[in-house]
Amino acid sequence: MNMTFLQELFNSITQRDARLWRRQGDTATPDHRRMLDACRALLESDGEASSISLASRALAMYQRLDEEERTRFFERLASDFAADPALIDETYAIYRAQRDNASLQMLFDACEPRRQELFRRLNLASNGTHALVRMREGLLERMHERPRSDTRELGAIDADFAHLFGSWFNRGFLVLKRIDWNTPASILEKIIRYEAVHEIRDWDDLRRRLDAVDRRCFAFFHPAIGDEPLIFVEVALHRGLPQRIQPILAGEHRDIDDPESADAAAFFGISNCQTGLRGISFGNFLIKQVVQELKQELPQLKHFVTLSPVPGFAHWLAERRNDETLPDELRQVLHELDAPDWHLDPARSERLKTVVKPLVARYLVDEKNAAGLPLNPVARFHLGNGAELHRINWLGDTSPKGLKQAAGLMVNYLYVLDDIERNHENYTANATVVCSGEVRDLNRRARKMAKGEFAK
Amino acid sequence: MNMTFLQELFNSITQRDARLWRRQGDTATPDHRRMLDACRALLESDGEASSISLASRALAMYQRLDEEERTRFFERLASDFAADPALIDETYAIYRAQRDNASLQMLFDACEPRRQELFRRLNLASNGTHALVRMREGLLERMHERPRSDTRELGAIDADFAHLFGSWFNRGFLVLKRIDWNTPASILEKIIRYEAVHEIRDWDDLRRRLDAVDRRCFAFFHPAIGDEPLIFVEVALHRGLPQRIQPILAGEHRDIDDPESADAAAFFGISNCQTGLRGISFGNFLIKQVVQELKQELPQLKHFVTLSPVPGFAHWLAERRNDETLPDELRQVLHELDAPDWHLDPARSERLKTVVKPLVARYLVDEKNAAGLPLNPVARFHLGNGAELHRINWLGDTSPKGLKQAAGLMVNYLYVLDDIERNHENYTANATVVCSGEVRDLNRRARKMAKGEFAK
Amino acid sequence: MNMTFLQELFNSITQRDARLWRRQGDTATPDHRRMLDACRALLESDGEASSISLASRALAMYQRLDEEERTRFFERLASDFAADPALIDETYAIYRAQRDNASLQMLFDACEPRRQELFRRLNLASNGTHALVRMREGLLERMHERPRSDTRELGAIDADFAHLFGSWFNRGFLVLKRIDWNTPASILEKIIRYEAVHEIRDWDDLRRRLDAVDRRCFAFFHPAIGDEPLIFVEVALHRGLPQRIQPILAGEHRDIDDPESADAAAFFGISNCQTGLRGISFGNFLIKQVVQELKQELPQLKHFVTLSPVPGFAHWLAERRNDETLPDELRQVLHELDAPDWHLDPARSERLKTVVKPLVARYLVDEKNAAGLPLNPVARFHLGNGAELHRINWLGDTSPKGLKQAAGLMVNYLYVLDDIERNHENYTANATVVCSGEVRDLNRRARKMAKGEFAK
Amino acid sequence: MNMTFLQELFNSITQRDARLWRRQGDTATPDHRRMLDACRALLESDGEASSISLASRALAMYQRLDEEERTRFFERLASDFAADPALIDETYAIYRAQRDNASLQMLFDACEPRRQELFRRLNLASNGTHALVRMREGLLERMHERPRSDTRELGAIDADFAHLFGSWFNRGFLVLKRIDWNTPASILEKIIRYEAVHEIRDWDDLRRRLDAVDRRCFAFFHPAIGDEPLIFVEVALHRGLPQRIQPILAGEHRDIDDPESADAAAFFGISNCQTGLRGISFGNFLIKQVVQELKQELPQLKHFVTLSPVPGFAHWLAERRNDETLPDELRQVLHELDAPDWHLDPARSERLKTVVKPLVARYLVDEKNAAGLPLNPVARFHLGNGAELHRINWLGDTSPKGLKQAAGLMVNYLYVLDDIERNHENYTANATVVCSGEVRDLNRRARKMAKGEFAK
Repeated sequence: MNMTFLQELFNSITQRDARLWRRQGDTATPDHRRMLDACRALLESDGEASSISLASRALAMYQRLDEEERTRFFERLASDFAADPALIDETYAIYRAQRDNASLQMLFDACEPRRQELFRRLNLASNGTHALVRMREGLLERMHERPRSDTRELGAIDADFAHLFGSWFNRGFLVLKRIDWNTPASILEKIIRYEAVHEIRDWDDLRRRLDAVDRRCFAFFHPAIGDEPLIFVEVALHRGLPQRIQPILAGEHRDIDDPESADAAAFFGISNCQTGLRGISFGNFLIKQVVQELKQELPQLKHFVTLSPVPGFAHWLAERRNDETLPDELRQVLHELDAPDWHLDPARSERLKTVVKPLVARYLVDEKNAAGLPLNPVARFHLGNGAELHRINWLGDTSPKGLKQAAGLMVNYLYVLDDIERNHENYTANATVVCSGEVRDLNRRARKMAKGEFAK
Repeated sequence: MNMTFLQELFNSITQRDARLWRRQGDTATPDHRRMLDACRALLESDGEASSISLASRALAMYQRLDEEERTRFFERLASDFAADPALIDETYAIYRAQRDNASLQMLFDACEPRRQELFRRLNLASNGTHALVRMREGLLERMHERPRSDTRELGAIDADFAHLFGSWFNRGFLVLKRIDWNTPASILEKIIRYEAVHEIRDWDDLRRRLDAVDRRCFAFFHPAIGDEPLIFVEVALHRGLPQRIQPILAGEHRDIDDPESADAAAFFGISNCQTGLRGISFGNFLIKQVVQELKQELPQLKHFVTLSPVPGFAHWLAERRNDETLPDELRQVLHELDAPDWHLDPARSERLKTVVKPLVARYLVDEKNAAGLPLNPVARFHLGNGAELHRINWLGDTSPKGLKQAAGLMVNYLYVLDDIERNHENYTANATVVCSGEVRDLNRRARKMAKGEFAK
Repeated sequence: MNMTFLQELFNSITQRDARLWRRQGDTATPDHRRMLDACRALLESDGEASSISLASRALAMYQRLDEEERTRFFERLASDFAADPALIDETYAIYRAQRDNASLQMLFDACEPRRQELFRRLNLASNGTHALVRMREGLLERMHERPRSDTRELGAIDADFAHLFGSWFNRGFLVLKRIDWNTPASILEKIIRYEAVHEIRDWDDLRRRLDAVDRRCFAFFHPAIGDEPLIFVEVALHRGLPQRIQPILAGEHRDIDDPESADAAAFFGISNCQTGLRGISFGNFLIKQVVQELKQELPQLKHFVTLSPVPGFAHWLAERRNDETLPDELRQVLHELDAPDWHLDPARSERLKTVVKPLVARYLVDEKNAAGLPLNPVARFHLGNGAELHRINWLGDTSPKGLKQAAGLMVNYLYVLDDIERNHENYTANATVVCSGEVRDLNRRARKMAKGEFAK
Repeated sequence: MNMTFLQELFNSITQRDARLWRRQGDTATPDHRRMLDACRALLESDGEASSISLASRALAMYQRLDEEERTRFFERLASDFAADPALIDETYAIYRAQRDNASLQMLFDACEPRRQELFRRLNLASNGTHALVRMREGLLERMHERPRSDTRELGAIDADFAHLFGSWFNRGFLVLKRIDWNTPASILEKIIRYEAVHEIRDWDDLRRRLDAVDRRCFAFFHPAIGDEPLIFVEVALHRGLPQRIQPILAGEHRDIDDPESADAAAFFGISNCQTGLRGISFGNFLIKQVVQELKQELPQLKHFVTLSPVPGFAHWLAERRNDETLPDELRQVLHELDAPDWHLDPARSERLKTVVKPLVARYLVDEKNAAGLPLNPVARFHLGNGAELHRINWLGDTSPKGLKQAAGLMVNYLYVLDDIERNHENYTANATVVCSGEVRDLNRRARKMAKGEFAK
């Protein structure tokens, strides 16, 4: 394959016309009715010659709609751009009579909401793809603000977006890219903005995270929205498995001064960047491809591991503490979590450690959601990817957020290359939570504790 | 938008694994049954973790199927990977009961042939997109070889491909790229291979066509199949509108030694490269974007014009000559076309010119197909794009092919920027053939000739 | 020329071996004697096979010398690596006897200080060029710290560097590059660091300066030290000639929202980045090439102008005020410059303006240095480049620095494309200071004022 | 170091002005007198503002000089642009009086031929570097055509070029680049043209050589003449050391279908591309850097070896055959070399092999030039680089050229990474020819044969 040439290909992709939209917009403030007219005009065009400008016009108009008019636009999109019931009935009758591919095809075409063709055509405009992702973002915000019962119709638009984006953002079209201090500032400022796990405060903080021999950061990009990362992961090279996040974030923990002396790669933050792409899953592909990249660059790496938060644990634990069936002794120790700065008091911390570590093992391994999968979303993600629940780190995250959401605990999920596939299959088929002996022991202790047995 | 960065993005896109497939293939020769199993396994996976390798395995297996097994595979794809009739009936009943978006969505999902999800998942593999385009190419060959009545079922697969490719190869994802003597050899050899209008004999011939101040060539590419052009157009810069193709092909016609002295850009060859993308239209987008590029580089350009063949005219004329209602005088002159090398005899050529030029005007303007559009496909393409039928060039193409298919005639279609939209709309709405006064006059003469009136 | 290919060329240029040096260095702290030995070994090698590693070793050793050892190294470099007097005498005798090219060549070779060959060989190492530029920087610091009389010998090394760098950094090898928000962060942080005219405080400040439709920034780079800018210039697009720097630095002055509506390009900061390249002139080439770039991007631009400081004016003026031959009235007004925040008092400012503007015109036009050229270095630079001294802007720079060094004045130098060459020649040949009518009038008034004539 | 950014740097480097020269040239045919005036004007300019256009004008004028005028131009360049004898005398007197660096510097400056400053200034023009390389090429042609005694003066110009080019084309400025089928056609056609060892017939031949998993080709480029390779080397990946060139050239010898199964990299052609850079040595740097690249890509490679011709051997052998001191038996066998197609006759070939292989060992090992180094230039090159004379291959090159120049023999020089440095030093210091036991044995046999001892 030809790499040189590809690099140059993308010069033209977006220069086309930032300018175009700006100029095309007329000055009158548009309302949702004119927006709907613009959509209809686009759908009625032949999809070719004049469609690019019709699409640009419609998207430019959408930019200028105020929030209320956008809401109305979405509502009418749901009601007026579905499919033609008469045509569905008619094609269904045919299909019923002759159940072959040709009549199925007609029925399928009749059932496709007209919105999908509308979105495909809007995509003809320059930067159309990103504009559509942003449009869905706006839609999701509206759905979020409403009572669930009321999102049924808007949900239909969302399903159309999801259907198309699933096709457009197929992993086959994604590109992995290393992010470092040589990355353009325009990308880096997005990394600062989108980091969701451990906040990046400013450029100096970013530099500490990225610009060191023991750091790696990778993101997925899509050619059509080339300067917007879709998802990124931060990695620290390490000797041994890391237990605590603060030294990593502080950039102090340079126990290696040569990447080749590291034996572990620790994934300490995965952030989705585009709300408008919710439900399109990139994370597992990202982790697997990053593992490959790292293996190639640093063949000596032995361990691929996360240093992950345990969101929801504190909440679960709080409920537990009210559970009167718990042995008093246990509840008493847990009470110490209410002491301010408990983690700075070694004796107290040690007492808590004895009971909380087992409990988090229990929480992660045994607590399930309605689907029979782990209650904890981070566990679901990594176990679903084929990782192993490997180690629980006491005082792994002593930031206010870390103390609040998980009593300062962090977890290592381990990706053992040879086991990933099998783990994944067991998880998918049987909801098996693969965990290390250490975690199993902790869980066992938790069960005993629940029965009042406290001795190790 | 960030251009620097984009250029680099695409380093990784295809290096991933040419190697991967090769290694993955086991050695046993596969048959269509194992291929179908591989497809089912892919569909039954959860679409994430293990899907990439399942997709790669399936595509690698397809590469190794022999032609017969591929045929069987396609037949089973048509029959076994459609949709579930029971589920369709069920969701239709719901939809019938409650005609809202949510139930429509369910019906739509039920009607989607499972092939579409299969193709989306196959696209997870490296180079999957191109492999699927090639797969459709193989499908189209099979459909072509069968009687039309027999292609109904295979046609369903083709419709699925067309549906997906229409989405994936949306113009918003295409990239325009100049092709010249600095283009990688691996791309240039494809230009040689794919040139469909005027054959390129070898590298020297290619160089004459591309590597001169008065030449431009542009192609559309798709990021996921980056080193395969989708369609390209060849342009000669010119002073005035060109009338004859041979000097252009010979590279002799350098009447300009500075691109800035040209006032016309002549499009003399548009070639589609990927049979597997049949029906996905790129040509009109290409022409319009190339016009923009050229305007930007050379603001002094005034005329954007084609030098186009008239395929089918000779065939149409041959039928006409048998038409006994034609005046004898006319038929007698046309008889001279049978003389060998008639075009080298100035007197004979002059006699023929007097009657054939009007006839070709008539053929292009008045002869319509079943849809009421011009019979000639090249005319349909350019008129549909909004061009004007501008001039008919006698002895425009004196190659054997040109003489054979169109009595040596070539046509200029003129793209007048301010008229394109209007022309396009008139053509779309009313099938109006916009032509110059000169062509109108010729057509008028043709009508008179048909009545026996030969004087100008 | 082939652009695609060139882009890729430079992948390899510096990856070679950041690592190399690190590993090569042995652990013993080196002194200047070992460094001199390493240099001798390099000079005695045959310049080919083993030279790269010898060069790398020597440069790595230099990195580890402490400041004192470096000083000694330079002193010995001056004394021990000059040329062989005996050989010079011998070749001169030959040349004296036969004054032809061949004997001149021998004499020339004999006279070349051995340092030059040493530096050429050190340049074989990866990143050698930058290391040598940094080495000269260290040398210049030492020369700066010594009394002038004592720099004679070190000056010889400096002359050798200057000779080589003049050849290596020939303008034919420089590359102009636009700097904007898409530039890698690693380059941008250097822009922050090197800005010498109007300090850039932080990343936000940088963004205000760079990332707007009305801003441009260009830098020269050299392929061999690719990520180090050599010199850069900041430009603001403007409607009309700008008078005040504060709105530009604040990024408030966006009187244009479309670059195409600007008619002037204002150069408001030129910064040299590499102290080690002192004396190698880039500035005039930079300005001229940037003017070309801007003309191409924005053909409507009419004025290319600077907004320049007047360093030294306040100093000159202070001396003037002590000059008893000046009319009392004049001295009295100038006295008001001592009032704190005088520029905020409109009446006082107006009074000062009447006398100070003429005086700065006089300072710039009539005050000359020993070479008969303008005393003011900024004036020398722009007039020498062929610009015209166009306008004096009252309260052009009201920053503390601006008030202190030039009583808040700024100057527009205007580059009139058709006049540049002629202006330059007049300046070079006759030291002619080309200025506008307005400036001439001001200067005339200054002369009258000096004679006590204050009326306009 | 910042790779992304570097890639983009070079966009601008040469686009500047192909056009410029064309336009600048006036129409009158210039002669050497006007050319000399143009050079003087350039030298008298201040080297800055107007110098670029003066340089462009002078180079454009040179392009239009006819051959005779160029000759006169060179002659005058030699006589009129040397150095000022009076100034030399004067500065020498000063130096003689005070032998310090400052006076040496003055003397050195006085001795530098003015041509060097002229060439540095010509280099200011766009593409000036390449134009100067071509200018030297023209100079070398003239020197070649003249009797040696007559080249003394032109030789002075050549020395000036060599001095400057040695500095400009310092290895620190060179860039290694892989050449393959994705390389731009404009570069590839130069590879076809410049291949000096084994002619490349056409594009198909080139493709066979380059576009296969077992082939590599690398070239050095210089940023300022970016699309002109300076030197390139062709490599075949191999299992074991290759003995014969024909299978490699034919592209038949794919004994590997995966580069990772090769254990040897065979360098089978090194070609210098720029006659104008004669004497600037790139070859050894190239080989060493290519070895590094290959080691990185394919760590399993064990042998780095050449398959080299033995130019001059046939000539040497022919002289030997006339040497009457040779044993008759030996001379008789050698006589068989005169038989047409002797290499196709197995018996004859076998007889010849017995005596010729020892003789070539002797030729390579023992025959020395005036400097005491091997007579054979290819041996000098590789032994000087630190390689070992490893194996002599009978019928290694059965092309007409191979048979004619070296009785069909080829040689493997082996680069043993750990020995390179030591070999190189022994060669440089003591002219030691490092060879394998096999070659030593052959040489011993040759000595015996010379004494009439033929038994093995």
